[in-house]
Amino acid sequence: MSSNNYYDVTTWPVGNPSEDVGEVINSIIADIKDRQAVADANSGGKPGAVIYIPPGDYHLRTQVVIDVSFLSIHGSGHGFTSSSIRFNVPEDEWPDLHELWPGGSRILVDIPLGGDGEESKGAAFYVERSGSPRISSVEFSNFCIDGLHFTPDGSGMHPENTYVNGKTGIYVANANDSFRVTGMGFVYLENALTIYNADALSVHDNFIAECGSCIELRGWGQASKITDNLVGAGFKGHSIYAENHGGLLITANNVFPRGASSVHLDGVTRSSVTNNRLHSFYPGMVILAANSSENLVATNHFLRDHEPWTPFLGVDNGLDDLYGLLCVSGSNNSVVGNHFSEIIDAQSIRPAGATPVVIRLMAGVGNFVSNNHVVAMDVHSKSSDSCFSAQVDALLTTEASDALAVTAVMVDSESARNTILDSGSDAQVIADRAVNAFRATPTVGSQAAHALVAQ
Amino acid sequence: MSSNNYYDVTTWPVGNPSEDVGEVINSIIADIKDRQAVADANSGGKPGAVIYIPPGDYHLRTQVVIDVSFLSIHGSGHGFTSSSIRFNVPEDEWPDLHELWPGGSRILVDIPLGGDGEESKGAAFYVERSGSPRISSVEFSNFCIDGLHFTPDGSGMHPENTYVNGKTGIYVANANDSFRVTGMGFVYLENALTIYNADALSVHDNFIAECGSCIELRGWGQASKITDNLVGAGFKGHSIYAENHGGLLITANNVFPRGASSVHLDGVTRSSVTNNRLHSFYPGMVILAANSSENLVATNHFLRDHEPWTPFLGVDNGLDDLYGLLCVSGSNNSVVGNHFSEIIDAQSIRPAGATPVVIRLMAGVGNFVSNNHVVAMDVHSKSSDSCFSAQVDALLTTEASDALAVTAVMVDSESARNTILDSGSDAQVIADRAVNAFRATPTVGSQAAHALVAQ
Amino acid sequence: MSSNNYYDVTTWPVGNPSEDVGEVINSIIADIKDRQAVADANSGGKPGAVIYIPPGDYHLRTQVVIDVSFLSIHGSGHGFTSSSIRFNVPEDEWPDLHELWPGGSRILVDIPLGGDGEESKGAAFYVERSGSPRISSVEFSNFCIDGLHFTPDGSGMHPENTYVNGKTGIYVANANDSFRVTGMGFVYLENALTIYNADALSVHDNFIAECGSCIELRGWGQASKITDNLVGAGFKGHSIYAENHGGLLITANNVFPRGASSVHLDGVTRSSVTNNRLHSFYPGMVILAANSSENLVATNHFLRDHEPWTPFLGVDNGLDDLYGLLCVSGSNNSVVGNHFSEIIDAQSIRPAGATPVVIRLMAGVGNFVSNNHVVAMDVHSKSSDSCFSAQVDALLTTEASDALAVTAVMVDSESARNTILDSGSDAQVIADRAVNAFRATPTVGSQAAHALVAQ
Repeated sequence: MSSNNYYDVTTWPVGNPSEDVGEVINSIIADIKDRQAVADANSGGKPGAVIYIPPGDYHLRTQVVIDVSFLSIHGSGHGFTSSSIRFNVPEDEWPDLHELWPGGSRILVDIPLGGDGEESKGAAFYVERSGSPRISSVEFSNFCIDGLHFTPDGSGMHPENTYVNGKTGIYVANANDSFRVTGMGFVYLENALTIYNADALSVHDNFIAECGSCIELRGWGQASKITDNLVGAGFKGHSIYAENHGGLLITANNVFPRGASSVHLDGVTRSSVTNNRLHSFYPGMVILAANSSENLVATNHFLRDHEPWTPFLGVDNGLDDLYGLLCVSGSNNSVVGNHFSEIIDAQSIRPAGATPVVIRLMAGVGNFVSNNHVVAMDVHSKSSDSCFSAQVDALLTTEASDALAVTAVMVDSESARNTILDSGSDAQVIADRAVNAFRATPTVGSQAAHALVAQ
Repeated sequence: MSSNNYYDVTTWPVGNPSEDVGEVINSIIADIKDRQAVADANSGGKPGAVIYIPPGDYHLRTQVVIDVSFLSIHGSGHGFTSSSIRFNVPEDEWPDLHELWPGGSRILVDIPLGGDGEESKGAAFYVERSGSPRISSVEFSNFCIDGLHFTPDGSGMHPENTYVNGKTGIYVANANDSFRVTGMGFVYLENALTIYNADALSVHDNFIAECGSCIELRGWGQASKITDNLVGAGFKGHSIYAENHGGLLITANNVFPRGASSVHLDGVTRSSVTNNRLHSFYPGMVILAANSSENLVATNHFLRDHEPWTPFLGVDNGLDDLYGLLCVSGSNNSVVGNHFSEIIDAQSIRPAGATPVVIRLMAGVGNFVSNNHVVAMDVHSKSSDSCFSAQVDALLTTEASDALAVTAVMVDSESARNTILDSGSDAQVIADRAVNAFRATPTVGSQAAHALVAQ
Repeated sequence: MSSNNYYDVTTWPVGNPSEDVGEVINSIIADIKDRQAVADANSGGKPGAVIYIPPGDYHLRTQVVIDVSFLSIHGSGHGFTSSSIRFNVPEDEWPDLHELWPGGSRILVDIPLGGDGEESKGAAFYVERSGSPRISSVEFSNFCIDGLHFTPDGSGMHPENTYVNGKTGIYVANANDSFRVTGMGFVYLENALTIYNADALSVHDNFIAECGSCIELRGWGQASKITDNLVGAGFKGHSIYAENHGGLLITANNVFPRGASSVHLDGVTRSSVTNNRLHSFYPGMVILAANSSENLVATNHFLRDHEPWTPFLGVDNGLDDLYGLLCVSGSNNSVVGNHFSEIIDAQSIRPAGATPVVIRLMAGVGNFVSNNHVVAMDVHSKSSDSCFSAQVDALLTTEASDALAVTAVMVDSESARNTILDSGSDAQVIADRAVNAFRATPTVGSQAAHALVAQ
């Protein structure tokens, strides 16, 4: 490319991109800023630049620090492959494998983590700029950030299964506007994407899996979207998390296990969790916590079943089956038209003998729970040494011997003035009818009586 | 790049892209057509070309005229930043700002507008071709079109806040097929995207804000999609508008203020407005006008609250609170599973003392309004000199002192044979029960009685 | 580009891309593998590569065989134009047409099909690799695969209208992970995209039309997404098909005629068909077959009307009007909040005099059908020699003279224990009330009575 604002990490004269692409990119950013200072004196324009990362393996030993707007960092391949499966293959079989590592335009995060444990120090890409205006339109697209290895967590678990390594893919520390993260791959990072104080952020069409936590929107923010991603966090972390956001749209994501939660909202208001496919091995799939209010949770597909893969058997998120697959502590939310499949082994229910809860209203007032469909089955759980075939096999199993009794909706005494319609039979809904409006899903017996009156 | 069909505006020998990228692109298009005439004599193929716009500032002083199919104009950065916030910062603070203007691959629209006021003359990119077949597969991706300034509108308002300047980003004048607009940024244009007679158009993942009107599909058309965009028009204009379209899919958009409407459909049939997050400061958020019929408006999140930013206090779209947040003049539409939050200061209601209307069926027959949830609160409105913090603050405020009485559904006498289910209590729904089917959302009192009979 | 892992088909020294881009790409893949063998000896990394196809016409006479992970094949234009319309223009008018063929980065599939009729032999891009791990992260983006011509099918139909030619665009034969197909155009192929055994596949934002079948996910698979595509198959084929998949998310697609079905699921479980716009000229639009269970079909817009274009008058998919627009043979599915428009000429109903069925539950138990809205009209069907104007005209027609009586929900005796709520009046739902729970959509008469009791 001829433009001064187009950079290729493999042709930049400073540094060696294979050895430390961080040094290379920082040098490019310094050049952009030097040139902008001159340009600014003439025209006022600071258009930014694009940095291209061709397919290849690039160690990153120096953290990239971004403090310039309109920077696009762009590759030609999200490069995901399952490191988790590979690490759980016996090493003597590795020579038979076609490839061992993720690929594409791949950043190998080799940051020497500081002893102080400061999270942002472990970020491959660190965005930080104070002052006005907020840093805008930084774009990350179509490359791979690979954290390489997890590390022992003290539990005795195989180190590569811990989801811990102190590494973050992209960390945005300050208020920001109109950022984009698109077409990226993230793998084997403790945190894939951590963004504070986002406005009009787009996280779209990424592949973020085998990371401790995948997408975390922290601090506060507004008017952002997390759409059309393939996401799956580790058992300790968040697949999609947001706090103190308003007007967030979370839609069309396919969120797979094994995140401690699929979507966790903390103090989030007037936002949407709609039209996602959510799959988890534990309760607490969607959590509306800390007075998350006026949100819409609609037409999502929830599946909770059991971990089928041997290396993670016995691992969970610590929540028991009374917690609910969807748990709401907040007010005036709408929960409409969701499908819930709870496919578990009754012998594994905790507390033993309990009736699992699907939707739980823990605190708050005025929630509207309508037209949700709960399917529950007691299956004899199976596991396998093969992750993929086990998962597919489990997913496709519908030949349950027995229906499983569940509480479709449970309303705690701390929650009141809710409306619960057509989301469970009379027996399946535990709610104080004196303080909550309720209409049971008609059953064969009930509807006949009902029809006599109503038609 | 080596291909004859790959052009870079910065290396093309004709014109100076910094001074007039329009002249450069028109020269490139002429070259494409010259070469196609030759190629066509041999093989019949006219594959088109890609024109690359690297990051940079490019004045456009000559309108680009596109009359060739399969043309891709592609940049490396949507480059949005808020010009509105900047223009409302005192100029003596500008030297302290990191940057003053949008960036990325940025087109600065500097067209000398003709005196005749013809709208298409003010378009940066003008697509016009008659004859057969319709022009096809023109693609705009990942660059920025910046209108630079708004101009006085005679109201005495600060000129940069008027959303008026006679400029359009992309204007498609004729019937067209399989166009794409993806990853673009539009800012400070009176009209961002105006497309007549579209078939199978995709407007996807763009950032279109601080424009008078954002997306307008005019004339007629079919089978298009407006998906996954961040959109916010000016107070006089449309965020998303379509007329005489069938089979239009508007989904997964995050539409923020301050458009006069969020989605306005005129004579649109058999289309979907689903799964969007919509935020407005005025009534009339979604308008189905001119016999718009058989549309599905489902699982959207509507938020209407007050303008919090000082420069726009007192501005509105002229509609009063009886108009409805969703207003339907048409037949056989489905309005299902939407969440509405109306968070306003009761003192500001117009007409004073009125009960605000949320869903209004103004004319037509056979609409189906089901399972919508209305939340209404009376808040003491606040404003701030800081746009962003004011908006976030307002969005996150849920500590309303009082519930606000609203009419959840109002059916005018010109509308009949509608079905209204579980979308408001008996008192909240104003509809002639003799000509509209109605079932009230159960309340605590009602459900007890109901349960006696129905179970 | 300078990187060794960036290839341009027009500059590669082996072969002639205009004459046979297949030979060129295979040579590039061989080079990638040669270099990986060396690289692997050093570092273990096999990052893959990107192959760029600039806009242009490229005959493909040799099948491309892909057996390497992390390969991105990328163009600069999806290049769709309607070959179907052009082929149905009299040839003596062709010289007046602006262009005759699709364009963009266009692959002309000129494979000499073998006599053995093996489907995979006719694929332009054939992905095949056995062993471990599964081939990962192959990406196809933003180019056009054009099958050029259809061939006689023995019916006497115009050969270019048969949708038959033995050609496939992309055929993936083995288990695969994290593939992407994005921004592509497919036209005039018997099968556009055929993928076996997909895990975490993304088929996003493509234009796939005028192909026999468009998207087929065969074998088995999980956790994939088909999102935001414009799709329309031929009358013999599938627009979107999947078998034995779990956790598939099909959302935000605009599926237009004339596929034999819009979405056909065979043995698919715990998946979502939500938020799509679906249009068909025949019954059997969405089919959940072969015990497809626990799926969510929600907030889709279904339109079934008549073929308006002269060349295809009289063509259909063989299903009669009792089959249903949505037909379910499976258990525990959720059908919630969909809009159905059935706009047909009563004279054309088959069997003659029958009452058309909208939702049919053919076999299975425990399905939940709630809050669906059915609109049916008897229109005098029209046709036209102009495909586009006929379709738009038909789409926009809502001035039906008469309402059409339909069966909104029909439950066969082989299906039981379903719940049907607010999806049709008592007269519109045919179901054994002794074995299915039912609540009729209130009508003007019914609701008054109901209100007396319930409020």
